[in-house]
Amino acid sequence: MFITFLTDFGLEDDFVGTCHGVLKRIAPDTQIIDITHGIRPGHVLQAALMLANTLPYMPPGVHLAVVDPGVGSGRRPLALRDAEGRLYVGPDNGLLIPAADCFGGVVEAHELANPEYALDSVSRTFHGRDLFSPAAAHLSLGVALGELGPPVDPEALVRLDLPEPEVGQSRIRATVLGVDRFGNIALNLSREHLDSVAIVPGMRVELAARGNRYYAVAARTFADAPTGELILYEDSYRSVAIAVSRGSAAAVLGVEEGAEIVLQIDAP
Amino acid sequence: MFITFLTDFGLEDDFVGTCHGVLKRIAPDTQIIDITHGIRPGHVLQAALMLANTLPYMPPGVHLAVVDPGVGSGRRPLALRDAEGRLYVGPDNGLLIPAADCFGGVVEAHELANPEYALDSVSRTFHGRDLFSPAAAHLSLGVALGELGPPVDPEALVRLDLPEPEVGQSRIRATVLGVDRFGNIALNLSREHLDSVAIVPGMRVELAARGNRYYAVAARTFADAPTGELILYEDSYRSVAIAVSRGSAAAVLGVEEGAEIVLQIDAP
Amino acid sequence: MFITFLTDFGLEDDFVGTCHGVLKRIAPDTQIIDITHGIRPGHVLQAALMLANTLPYMPPGVHLAVVDPGVGSGRRPLALRDAEGRLYVGPDNGLLIPAADCFGGVVEAHELANPEYALDSVSRTFHGRDLFSPAAAHLSLGVALGELGPPVDPEALVRLDLPEPEVGQSRIRATVLGVDRFGNIALNLSREHLDSVAIVPGMRVELAARGNRYYAVAARTFADAPTGELILYEDSYRSVAIAVSRGSAAAVLGVEEGAEIVLQIDAP
Repeated sequence: MFITFLTDFGLEDDFVGTCHGVLKRIAPDTQIIDITHGIRPGHVLQAALMLANTLPYMPPGVHLAVVDPGVGSGRRPLALRDAEGRLYVGPDNGLLIPAADCFGGVVEAHELANPEYALDSVSRTFHGRDLFSPAAAHLSLGVALGELGPPVDPEALVRLDLPEPEVGQSRIRATVLGVDRFGNIALNLSREHLDSVAIVPGMRVELAARGNRYYAVAARTFADAPTGELILYEDSYRSVAIAVSRGSAAAVLGVEEGAEIVLQIDAP
Repeated sequence: MFITFLTDFGLEDDFVGTCHGVLKRIAPDTQIIDITHGIRPGHVLQAALMLANTLPYMPPGVHLAVVDPGVGSGRRPLALRDAEGRLYVGPDNGLLIPAADCFGGVVEAHELANPEYALDSVSRTFHGRDLFSPAAAHLSLGVALGELGPPVDPEALVRLDLPEPEVGQSRIRATVLGVDRFGNIALNLSREHLDSVAIVPGMRVELAARGNRYYAVAARTFADAPTGELILYEDSYRSVAIAVSRGSAAAVLGVEEGAEIVLQIDAP
Repeated sequence: MFITFLTDFGLEDDFVGTCHGVLKRIAPDTQIIDITHGIRPGHVLQAALMLANTLPYMPPGVHLAVVDPGVGSGRRPLALRDAEGRLYVGPDNGLLIPAADCFGGVVEAHELANPEYALDSVSRTFHGRDLFSPAAAHLSLGVALGELGPPVDPEALVRLDLPEPEVGQSRIRATVLGVDRFGNIALNLSREHLDSVAIVPGMRVELAARGNRYYAVAARTFADAPTGELILYEDSYRSVAIAVSRGSAAAVLGVEEGAEIVLQIDAP
């Protein structure tokens, strides 16, 4: 049995290791796959998108995710099941929903309320350790979802607003979803958005970001462009992204998550 | 069987991975739990406190910890057993003692001196790989503590000076034990210290740090304070800590590990 | 069975976790040892040297390494076997060769070309996930190397130019191979190079770096020098290195990977 684990805890502190300890004390034979703990602190949207992107590559099992700026407030702690039987544990702040939607959506939801499946003492600030990890570990051992607490109507769960692009005749206003270690910039666009304004490989596209203008070439991969040139391509998670061959596009454009970038092609 | 592992090695280099390799060559079925490798280089006190905080959440087994600025000098390499049977491997610089004291204290200590339980060649600068990891792996396989080398009197082990607060009538002089990824500041205070100067939830407390004055509200959790306000609370390891709801207290106060913070309440 | 894993992916993003997911879906019982994912992006030479340094400490098995600035171009994806039976998976850019040379050299090489051992859809930019991880997982399950694709002449594999020192009568011109978390500077020198200019422990050596001059003491370990003094020593991987006892030599000398350092002794 597998538990995947995604948080904004970082690896400098003991938070991730402590949760591993809690998981392994309860479920010593369950394997843990750390998706990442490098989510920017409190960035629920970034985490929700990454979870949705990566779960298709993960073995089925329990998907534990904790990015929880509202810990200690009234937000509900949850355990969910999707239509394909994958299980999810995390806070009711929208984090888990885009991933579950990739597998047919949430079909069953319960609030974590049964103290039998939490640590003896639950702190007010570290539910990852005291509440979510024990629940995930018990689920991995086969405890039924309904044992963890009362049912919640899936329609009543908190959902995130995903930023939507504005698509015009020859112009798209997009939002940066994330920037990776290599400086590649993922946008809230799919190839269909590019098709709709007739951007095809080889075409030159004007980019406007932070008041400056740049030119990128629509391409299939880094290697299709000379070193140092901006390219617009479909990344490995099928988002449209901006890269610089052997360089950092984020450094060139000076943008980070949440920034706006306008793509424009010459009127046909 | 479990080995927990805590160091200041970081994850940018191969040090942690190489130790995992050594552990797994000797004990392929032993599971490794990485508590953290993000201890600031050489900060033995920070590591000792984190080990003591986290071990209650870890499965029993062998607790390997290496923060070892004195590697290559005369400091002894050790294997210890506490009163509850947990085993420890690391340098004789105080690192292991606060954790063992949480479990009844050290009842047996041995110096690592038997070359049969070290790598064939022991370098002068990487005992984590050549000496401590092999010893931990062999212990996880059931090798007796006494096989590793001659006994050491537990009273003769190096112990750390923990910084003690100065508690007055309406004033506490505290030391920052650590700052986490979220900017939360852990102090060398327990709730009993706050009680002794009659600080109760809801009370306003003056903080003096680096010559500046701030006000914090004593609270039970982040969610009890408006965004951006400083709060004083008991953290998830039962240390008194300073946080900013949805912000970094360390950035606001400009402090790091070792800094002094004075808490003052209005005279009653 | 073991797969070791070394990349420049970092841990802030999901790249490493996603590859773990792919590996575990195919080979759930194979154990993964992360050597490091902190290689500087695109630094193939640094990664190749680290792989060669660390493999002797790793259990035999499949050695997966991905530092792949040429992904999406024509560079071949490879699976190799060395003379001792260890297997390697990664790009044909020289990354794997120095490690295989530690175990008798490459005796069999195949291009990854069989879609049966790749993911259903292979992206142009993330071969670590879509091509290399599946191949490594299948190899760990016992799939024969020849199943993965057509043979490649080992002589035709890309090899790296390792920087060679210039050794004179009383002078060595060396290159920085890497700087670790502690600020220790590894040079492209072995103890034999020091012997050849008659540098022995206790001798004072002049270092020239970035136009400045420093003095270091040849020593056996950090502890042989006073705090703050530069020392020249053989590090735990048998490279000659420069350190400062309880400090960062890289900060003192202001150098990073690739920099040149000249060692000079007084003419005898």
